Amino acid sequence: MNDITLYDLEGRNGRRFSPFCWRVKLALQHKDLDYTVKPVRFTEIPAVHDGAFKSVPIINHQGHWMDQSWAIVNYLETQFDDRPSLFGSPTGKSLAEFVTCWTDSQLLAPVFRAIVTDIYANIQPEDQPYFRTTREKRLGMALEDTLPQRDANRSEFRQKLYPLRQLLGSQPYLGGGQASHADYAVFSTFLWAETASDFALLEDDDPVQDWKRRMYRDHDVSGSY
Amino acid sequence: MNDITLYDLEGRNGRRFSPFCWRVKLALQHKDLDYTVKPVRFTEIPAVHDGAFKSVPIINHQGHWMDQSWAIVNYLETQFDDRPSLFGSPTGKSLAEFVTCWTDSQLLAPVFRAIVTDIYANIQPEDQPYFRTTREKRLGMALEDTLPQRDANRSEFRQKLYPLRQLLGSQPYLGGGQASHADYAVFSTFLWAETASDFALLEDDDPVQDWKRRMYRDHDVSGSY
Repeated sequence: MNDITLYDLEGRNGRRFSPFCWRVKLALQHKDLDYTVKPVRFTEIPAVHDGAFKSVPIINHQGHWMDQSWAIVNYLETQFDDRPSLFGSPTGKSLAEFVTCWTDSQLLAPVFRAIVTDIYANIQPEDQPYFRTTREKRLGMALEDTLPQRDANRSEFRQKLYPLRQLLGSQPYLGGGQASHADYAVFSTFLWAETASDFALLEDDDPVQDWKRRMYRDHDVSGSY
Repeated sequence: MNDITLYDLEGRNGRRFSPFCWRVKLALQHKDLDYTVKPVRFTEIPAVHDGAFKSVPIINHQGHWMDQSWAIVNYLETQFDDRPSLFGSPTGKSLAEFVTCWTDSQLLAPVFRAIVTDIYANIQPEDQPYFRTTREKRLGMALEDTLPQRDANRSEFRQKLYPLRQLLGSQPYLGGGQASHADYAVFSTFLWAETASDFALLEDDDPVQDWKRRMYRDHDVSGSY
């Protein structure tokens, strides 16, 4: 036992949709580390570790507490450097960081706007007032007012996926022959969207589909739908 | 002599602004290869090598002719594998390809729309009718009709630079400690924009400025303005 506890966001019926929690779960799997999951609702986060954190994922590794998925991933890479690398090489770390920042700044927003009403429907009832208030403030509109634009948001997402599509046209994973954190950063976006919503983000013949199927097949994605 | 000839787009007063030609020139410099530049106008490209190519850059390496900057860069990397690598590692190649596709699909369009009237003013008069016809078709509007939107296009460009900004916050170059093709792919966008236009794309305090200054300082950018 490595004595790692992960606090993971839980929605209705055990759904785990947080993309940032997925990145940590996929990193823990990549390094073949045992871990214990503690499910939490949005509104339970302030009770974790005396309110030290505002968001999940949070990990407790033998008394060392951390939040923020990129920081956690780097911590795991360093602490467990005898396990398979999450980056593969120093330039692989650059690739992972670039792809992570690209995902966070370019992909998440259009997906969020396309599926936010479905996220709302699939979080636990105790979290819904908190979610509605904070997300409507961020969106500048009622959650339901995003619906007329969901096709436009999906189109924006598909257009922004272009570099991913191109790279996967010449190799099976973003870093080359095997999955690494760069893949997990993007894949977590699909795990989030598809666990929260039935709205199909990709066209059936999008080359990204094959990569996504392989990612689902080769990882433990329990809690996704 | 390696006997490499590069056909490079030339505008007014010797300006060399093609971002794709810059990528090849920076790659040749990176590998410390001698080369001869043949300047061409847009409308002279069909006369090169019996009309085999539709765009520059074009190289002729000892009778082997090629176009397309990414293909040329990969050719140089393979042919001159005893020279400094343009990618640094296999994952570095993934980084270079991802950043190149990201640049081409996300960055070039808003920059183009922000500076297209300045490009028009700075190409050779013989090229202007060709440029106006083809670019107005691509834009779906008169060149001059882009002007009311240039601030909006610049804002879009700045927003899209977010992953670059983040990565350069933690390391001096995109691939780590030294410049590689990933840097050249993005830097070529600035060489293009700044050679064709005085419209300042970045805010003075943008962290990307420091990287850009180092890139200008450390490379032969003759023909840029």
